[in-house]
Parts: sequence; structure tokens; C-alpha cells
Amino acid sequence: MPEIQYFSKEITLSPQSEPAGKSFPAKLAYWTFGDVSNPAVLLPSCYGGTLATTTPFLYSTDEGNKPVFPTNKYFVIVTGLLGGGESSSPINAPEPWKAADFPHVTYEDNIRLQYALCESLGVKKLHAYIGFSMGGQQAYHMATLYPDFVEHMVCLAGSARTSWHNWNFLEGPRNALVHSIDFKEGRYTETPLRGQRAFMRVYSTWALSQGWYRQKCWEQLGFKTLEDYLEAGWSGEKADGNGLLALLWTWQKGDITLYHPEDKGDLAKTLGRIKAKCLIFPSRTDTYFPPEDNEEEVKHLKHGEFRCIETVWGHIAGGGGGTKEDTEYMKKEIARFVGAEYA
Amino acid sequence: MPEIQYFSKEITLSPQSEPAGKSFPAKLAYWTFGDVSNPAVLLPSCYGGTLATTTPFLYSTDEGNKPVFPTNKYFVIVTGLLGGGESSSPINAPEPWKAADFPHVTYEDNIRLQYALCESLGVKKLHAYIGFSMGGQQAYHMATLYPDFVEHMVCLAGSARTSWHNWNFLEGPRNALVHSIDFKEGRYTETPLRGQRAFMRVYSTWALSQGWYRQKCWEQLGFKTLEDYLEAGWSGEKADGNGLLALLWTWQKGDITLYHPEDKGDLAKTLGRIKAKCLIFPSRTDTYFPPEDNEEEVKHLKHGEFRCIETVWGHIAGGGGGTKEDTEYMKKEIARFVGAEYA
Repeated sequence: MPEIQYFSKEITLSPQSEPAGKSFPAKLAYWTFGDVSNPAVLLPSCYGGTLATTTPFLYSTDEGNKPVFPTNKYFVIVTGLLGGGESSSPINAPEPWKAADFPHVTYEDNIRLQYALCESLGVKKLHAYIGFSMGGQQAYHMATLYPDFVEHMVCLAGSARTSWHNWNFLEGPRNALVHSIDFKEGRYTETPLRGQRAFMRVYSTWALSQGWYRQKCWEQLGFKTLEDYLEAGWSGEKADGNGLLALLWTWQKGDITLYHPEDKGDLAKTLGRIKAKCLIFPSRTDTYFPPEDNEEEVKHLKHGEFRCIETVWGHIAGGGGGTKEDTEYMKKEIARFVGAEYA
Repeated sequence: MPEIQYFSKEITLSPQSEPAGKSFPAKLAYWTFGDVSNPAVLLPSCYGGTLATTTPFLYSTDEGNKPVFPTNKYFVIVTGLLGGGESSSPINAPEPWKAADFPHVTYEDNIRLQYALCESLGVKKLHAYIGFSMGGQQAYHMATLYPDFVEHMVCLAGSARTSWHNWNFLEGPRNALVHSIDFKEGRYTETPLRGQRAFMRVYSTWALSQGWYRQKCWEQLGFKTLEDYLEAGWSGEKADGNGLLALLWTWQKGDITLYHPEDKGDLAKTLGRIKAKCLIFPSRTDTYFPPEDNEEEVKHLKHGEFRCIETVWGHIAGGGGGTKEDTEYMKKEIARFVGAEYA
């Protein structure tokens, strides 16, 4: 695992951030691979993601993976979301921004920071910006905020604006945590294990589909029972409650129309402004980024393509967490879309 | 509103109940309408339901409703689930069964008690047993446990066995409540408002569909914002935490195969034993009783019919909480199925 690099910049928090317009000493965690003279590909993290878990199937050769973007042919940048634990987050921010006092940052804060990083690296244009989930939302936000900076964007199981359904789904785990016995309004001195467990258990059912449970797919992952699977992956022990809420806030407020107040919230109009070639790529059984929302988006994109992963692995298929066939399909389609050699 | 009647019986808790095999002084809350000489129709309550909210569209003439089962032609029995607040429940049970010490009762306990009530009323056969959600599950359980007692059963947005997906969805609100700051392992002396709020907010997103949110259907209910809608209907103020958990336990353990251990959990086999004519009637967009599960069930029923409410009103459409058209469609199909005059 390469050492994490940090890009530090005093940023002015966006108009939608809380507090808005304040100066904040931001630190962006990132990795780069390869030579900056090659076409640049930026891969942003998702909810709960780290640099290491951010779509390695797209660039890594670990475990025999065949990358779409081999690092001898592409300059790969992997970035961590503010709040995600590696970039500025409740667990690592300096006073007066520590823990429960971490600011509510927006996608705009994240995207402007990533853009500044790219500038500092000497990247004039991104060949591709590809993200999963909150990463897919970042792809939309980057393509809207810097329309001339991105040639290809791929939104895997994400959306241009967080739907009301998605917003309310997130209210579930949020309420479970903030009303938990050990969260203490975020002023905990020990990890709020019960609150984080409640948060994760609420979340878990949304991440996969009805069909996944029907087929007992936990058995494919080597677990005898659903309870074993949940205990291993959804107990929340390693999380940080304030971090979970920080990212969640960013997600709930995701909305590209905010960059164009003159569009008055008309998503179709703002989508029509995007210049990048867009590949909008949901999973058929995603319960909170349903493909129907993406199909509607694509109607309004200048250069939009729609592909769908036909899978029971729900939301997580979009991050490469589904079957081998699901991931292979994504890789082939992404390679075709960006014109990469891959066969 | 008629006065609630109570049928009291010392019951032996079922083999799956906790504690199993113990004697419990059960009290079944019910209403009857009409004359016992007419064909009998039993309508059981759902999760969170009361006698008053239990499918009144099927029998009531209130608010201009045209009933499928007018009470001058049918003997209508409405029953409340154990744990639902009117029948024996944590809030009304005597020592040593009060509050957090309320037993974990099963559908079997409920169904045997309902059967005993029918016997005591002189009902030899049910013309129809029709329930929504947990009521639909009760319909399956009654038809399996007393195969010669039910002529027609209608399962509205329910299932014969609680799926693993459904089980895990329920783990969400359950975890939110049991880990909440004011639940105190059920030994609260004041209503655990924060825990119940968390419970309800987690639950709310599941009750409706993605499309419902996309179309902002809360506006059709007279609410300006989603938050207004949630605050009015999903704040959990009027609930009782221990009651929520008692019912949830029954639901999570729902499984008709338990009555036939020789079927070894083979649902198809147990479904094949049901003699009643069955109308299995989900909502197209139900997120936790998905129509796919019902379609599979119907394949194995001797006399099974499948109908589906084509609606964005998700689970709650099955209880008559969707559009007027949704409810009208259900009424017509139910009338046709049981041979009732209705036009």
C-alpha cells in the first residue's frame, strides 16, 4: 500500500456548507500512480471508502486484476472524501473543527479541493473522472462545476441530485445513531459502539437487494448464516460516528443545480449544461440510487449513455462488490466508453 | 366506534414462543358486526394497526365507503394482534408479563386464539379471512393451521414466510430502538420518545416506494414538504416501544412450514397443503413484501390466484392506504374472488 499523500489548502467553505463562507484548513488525502504526462484518471472515494477500497478494479494489478487503466499508460489519482477518515475528518481535524465540531462540508468543497490538487499536480484536463455512489455524485458535481475539465465521466450507482427517497433512507441510519445511548450528541470519549451498530444494521438492508437475500448470496461470500455475514461486515466497530454523519450530510445535500441558481432547481436544465461525455451506470437492483432516476437524467445530458448492471447485488455491485461477471461487464463498458485498450 | 370486546383464554404458548409451552392469560380484542347466521369474514390487524384501522374499506359504510362485505349480509369479525395494544400487550398485560416481560408470542398463538374466539361465537367456517401485511401473514397461518376452517383467504401485501430480506429490514428499526438513549432495555418509565422516533424514521422509507418520493406524493396528502409528512405520521410519539418490539418479534418468526416439521422448511410443500382458495395480492412497489416472493408462492398453492396493485404507494397500498383507484381495484378483485355482490 503506497503512503498516503496530503494536499493542504485553506479553503473557503461553500455557500451551502455550515458554517458557510468560513475559512477551513482542508487536507485532501490522495494517491497518484504513473506519470503525469499520461492521460489522467481521477477516482474519488465513496461513503465509508478509503483510498485502498476505491475502485481498485479499475487500475490495480493486485490479485491478478486486469486494469482498465494500467498505471504505465495512465496517471491515476485516487482521492478521499472530506469526512472519510483520511482527508480532513472529525477524527483528525484540528481545533476548533474536531469531532462533533467538524464543519458540514458539501460536494462543492470536495470538488474545488480536488481541482486545486489537480492544478498543483500539473493536470490540465481529466481524461476520465469515475466514481461509485458518493463518487458517482462527485463525478456529476465535477462535470458541472468544471465543465471544461472533464472529458469522460462515469457515474456508477450515483446521481446528479440526491432524491427525496435517498435522503429519507439516510435519515434512518442517521436517526439510529443520533438517538443512540452512547453517541452523546457526538461528544463521546469512547467509540459509540451501540449507536454505530444500530447505524450499520439499518444501513445493511439497503445496500443489497431483495433478490440477493432470496438467493442467500451471503453463502457465496463464505458465510453460513445471514447473521454471520452481518456480524462480520455490518457491526460498525471500526467506524467513527461523527465521520459517518459528516459524510452523510454531504450526501444528503448533493445537488448539481445549486451551481446554477438561475436554473431554479430544474435538474434537466443543469444536466444540459454538462459538456463531458457521460456514462451513467446504475445497478438494476439498487434500492437508493434506482436506475429509473438515472434513465431520466440521461434524457437531458448532451452526451449521455446509460448502461445497467443486471445483478441482484444491489447498490454494492456498482463499486465492484458484486459478482465477477458484474465487475467484468463494468470494466468492458468503461473501457469502451473512454477508448481504453481492454480485452 | 363500537366498544371493544375481549375474548379471554388461558393459552399455552406455542413451541416457537418464548417462553415456549408456558401458560399465558391471553385477551383477544375484537369487534363483530352483523348476524352470526350470515357468512363470516375475519379481518385481522396489521403491524401498528388497531381494530379501527383494520381494513375498514372492506366492511364499513363510513365516509361514503361502499363495502365489499356489508354488515347486513356478512358477519364481520375484526381482531387485534397480541402485542398490538388492544389485545394482550406489554402496556396492558398483568404481572409477571408486563412491559419488557411480555412473552414473545407467535402467529400460532394469535391464530389459535382467533380460532377459539370463532368457536365461542358459533362460527363453524370462515367464508373469508382477509388481512394486510402481518394480517396477510395471519391469513396464510390460519389457512395452514386450520385448513378446513377457511374457504377463501386473501393475503394483501404479506407472505407465507418472512423472507430474510424482510427479517433484516426489521432488524433496522429494532436496532434503532434497542440501542436508543431512552429505551433502557424496555424498562423505561417514560415513553422512549427518542428511540421511538428513530424506530419510525428508519421504518418510514420502507413503507413507500422510490416512485412515491419521485412524484412527491406527500403533496397529495396535503403536506407541503416531506419533513412535514414525516413529522405528522412517523414521529412515533403515540407508540409503545415494547409493543413495537413484541409485534416485530412475531413478524420476524412468521413461517407456515413450522406447522409441518416433516416438510423440513420446504415452503412449496407446506403451501401445497393449503385447501383454501387463496388470493395473493401484493403491491408492485412493496419493498419488503415484494411481488416476486408471492408469485413464487402461488406456483405451489392448490387454489392460488395472483393479483398485483400497480401503484407507487408501496407497501401501504395493500392496506387501502394508496390511491382511491388502488383501493377500488382491490375491492373489485376481492369481491369477484369471494363471490360478493359489488359493482
